[in-house]
Amino acid sequence: MINGEYQVLGIAGSLRKGSFNRGLLRAAVNVKPQGMNIDICDISRIPLFNEDLRVDGGPDAVREFKDRIAGADGLLFAVPEYNYSMAGVFKNAIDWASRPIDTSPLVGKPIAMMGAGGGLGAGRAQYHFRQAAVFVNMIPMNRPELMVPHAWDKFAENGDLKDETYLPRIAEFLTAFVAWIKFVKAGQAAQ
Amino acid sequence: MINGEYQVLGIAGSLRKGSFNRGLLRAAVNVKPQGMNIDICDISRIPLFNEDLRVDGGPDAVREFKDRIAGADGLLFAVPEYNYSMAGVFKNAIDWASRPIDTSPLVGKPIAMMGAGGGLGAGRAQYHFRQAAVFVNMIPMNRPELMVPHAWDKFAENGDLKDETYLPRIAEFLTAFVAWIKFVKAGQAAQ
Amino acid sequence: MINGEYQVLGIAGSLRKGSFNRGLLRAAVNVKPQGMNIDICDISRIPLFNEDLRVDGGPDAVREFKDRIAGADGLLFAVPEYNYSMAGVFKNAIDWASRPIDTSPLVGKPIAMMGAGGGLGAGRAQYHFRQAAVFVNMIPMNRPELMVPHAWDKFAENGDLKDETYLPRIAEFLTAFVAWIKFVKAGQAAQ
Amino acid sequence: MINGEYQVLGIAGSLRKGSFNRGLLRAAVNVKPQGMNIDICDISRIPLFNEDLRVDGGPDAVREFKDRIAGADGLLFAVPEYNYSMAGVFKNAIDWASRPIDTSPLVGKPIAMMGAGGGLGAGRAQYHFRQAAVFVNMIPMNRPELMVPHAWDKFAENGDLKDETYLPRIAEFLTAFVAWIKFVKAGQAAQ
Repeated sequence: MINGEYQVLGIAGSLRKGSFNRGLLRAAVNVKPQGMNIDICDISRIPLFNEDLRVDGGPDAVREFKDRIAGADGLLFAVPEYNYSMAGVFKNAIDWASRPIDTSPLVGKPIAMMGAGGGLGAGRAQYHFRQAAVFVNMIPMNRPELMVPHAWDKFAENGDLKDETYLPRIAEFLTAFVAWIKFVKAGQAAQ
Repeated sequence: MINGEYQVLGIAGSLRKGSFNRGLLRAAVNVKPQGMNIDICDISRIPLFNEDLRVDGGPDAVREFKDRIAGADGLLFAVPEYNYSMAGVFKNAIDWASRPIDTSPLVGKPIAMMGAGGGLGAGRAQYHFRQAAVFVNMIPMNRPELMVPHAWDKFAENGDLKDETYLPRIAEFLTAFVAWIKFVKAGQAAQ
Repeated sequence: MINGEYQVLGIAGSLRKGSFNRGLLRAAVNVKPQGMNIDICDISRIPLFNEDLRVDGGPDAVREFKDRIAGADGLLFAVPEYNYSMAGVFKNAIDWASRPIDTSPLVGKPIAMMGAGGGLGAGRAQYHFRQAAVFVNMIPMNRPELMVPHAWDKFAENGDLKDETYLPRIAEFLTAFVAWIKFVKAGQAAQ
Repeated sequence: MINGEYQVLGIAGSLRKGSFNRGLLRAAVNVKPQGMNIDICDISRIPLFNEDLRVDGGPDAVREFKDRIAGADGLLFAVPEYNYSMAGVFKNAIDWASRPIDTSPLVGKPIAMMGAGGGLGAGRAQYHFRQAAVFVNMIPMNRPELMVPHAWDKFAENGDLKDETYLPRIAEFLTAFVAWIKFVKAGQAAQ
């Protein structure tokens, strides 16, 4: 926490320029509530995971990624869904950050996830990510959930969210996340 | 909390006499750590869910079930797996307790789940139950997980756990659950 | 197959009178394509599963249920979603029909699933049911999927589907199911 | 089919040299039954998915990958599990091969999956992959499943399977896959 604001790291899992999920993250920055600052993290320089590379120290981009996670009070994920599960690119970044699990900065973090996608608004990917959180021991917020279905109607070509009816829902989601970070931190302090 | 002990309600989801999951719950009672009391709840009188019945007040067995949940500091579930998901009988009891969701005593409860089963130790049912917890807003402990595979080798015909090598693991699991209940309560107090 | 029509058994997993899923099944009967007959099965008399009861022969309602499944060329499920998974009542009927697995009439059946529900149209329950199908070795159609979200807007109080824009989609879904049954039967004949 | 043998493409989803899943695939080649040939595919040159790259034709490694999939009668996947889901590297290769979905060579393919991993033998990743198969319309074999738990005890440092008790199970699994390919091809011919 800096100046009374939780420092949240925003991680979007898609690489294309006009990505809806990166646009969703930018929209979140615009409507973030009091008590929260969001820094956006770029995962495009993180290579494909290879345990052999990891053992030798790992790529610089991964070290930076893990450092930024370690410094955050909470993590806000925009999870793209490909083929009814997490995008491989997104999962690959999580795989890097989780290894070795004993010292992973992901462990114990309060997290929230959102996403934009097809008919179910990338919801299927979120449930798979929640299962990953069990292993990694991240502490995900249950509610509210934030899924934006039929994304192609709601985002501009450059990825900006153009359907403004979602803004109050995103704001409410982030307000709940401030409370969730507070919840997790108080819980951890008591243990 | 009564006399410095968290009051935990133990719920096993199988009806047959020699149920492994009920045996697992009895084993848990035997090795429970300081700071925890476990009362076992019988779900055999809870009928099949029917929304029409519910609206009219609901069966007595359900009211009792919900009252006991409301009075507990945490819930310990022994989740049977049938057909790679939660047993219908178990899920049916959860369905009753969750309705109406706005006043459900399940909401916000710290929970832990364990199970005995086939090759994966009823693990598949646990992941499905964790998804149910998202909707109901129960707060499940991530780790350690407790799955007892090849249950027919490890339990007696009457359902008693005979493989004593599991006892320290169950004790460790319950100790972690005491800490988890403390975590959730401190978190809720801070909100 | 009777008179050139596949005999499909329709199974809805909710007991309340005005159930949307039972209404969805009635709508399916109304728009069923050539080459398919749908009989609707009532599961309200199937009791809670208890392995002790099963070993002693099982209830009459279960025997009838299994006989009707055995006589069908394919199974059409309307799967209600409670708490982000299959309704317990639905799963309970499946649990009965699946035991003992070696002689279960479910094994090898071509199946299709549909559902009406909340924001995701009972989709989460379908994915859990698909996992159950792996164990039971039912052969589920992949596509098209049929999920009716925000069901309360689309069904009348008595459960009848009033949003007629779904009728062509249901018809298309059933036409694909005729082809799927044909696919599975030809595959089984070749083995 | 060439010379009476189904041409199966084997795809392992891990990049490290001593990968257990690549070792499992090599073991499969060694015990493959009559009627099946297995070619192993290397995915290490497939880059991170980026829709912008794809639209411009896509990398050569992806085109080759898709060509090899197109030429195969069936696909045998060795699915690594990281963080209770598919490894990102594996999922990334699937994401490339699936786009655009209308012409993806994955569509309609008979597939089988196996894996080596931790306590549940990479089983959790398999269930997530099965959900991906729904979207892609691949046709996965239900049974038998093949999961190798506690892989570090069963594989040598170079990734070779050293626990020979698994060889007959792998052979049985592949024999069932021959029958499954036959099943799917007969089904498709009948449609």
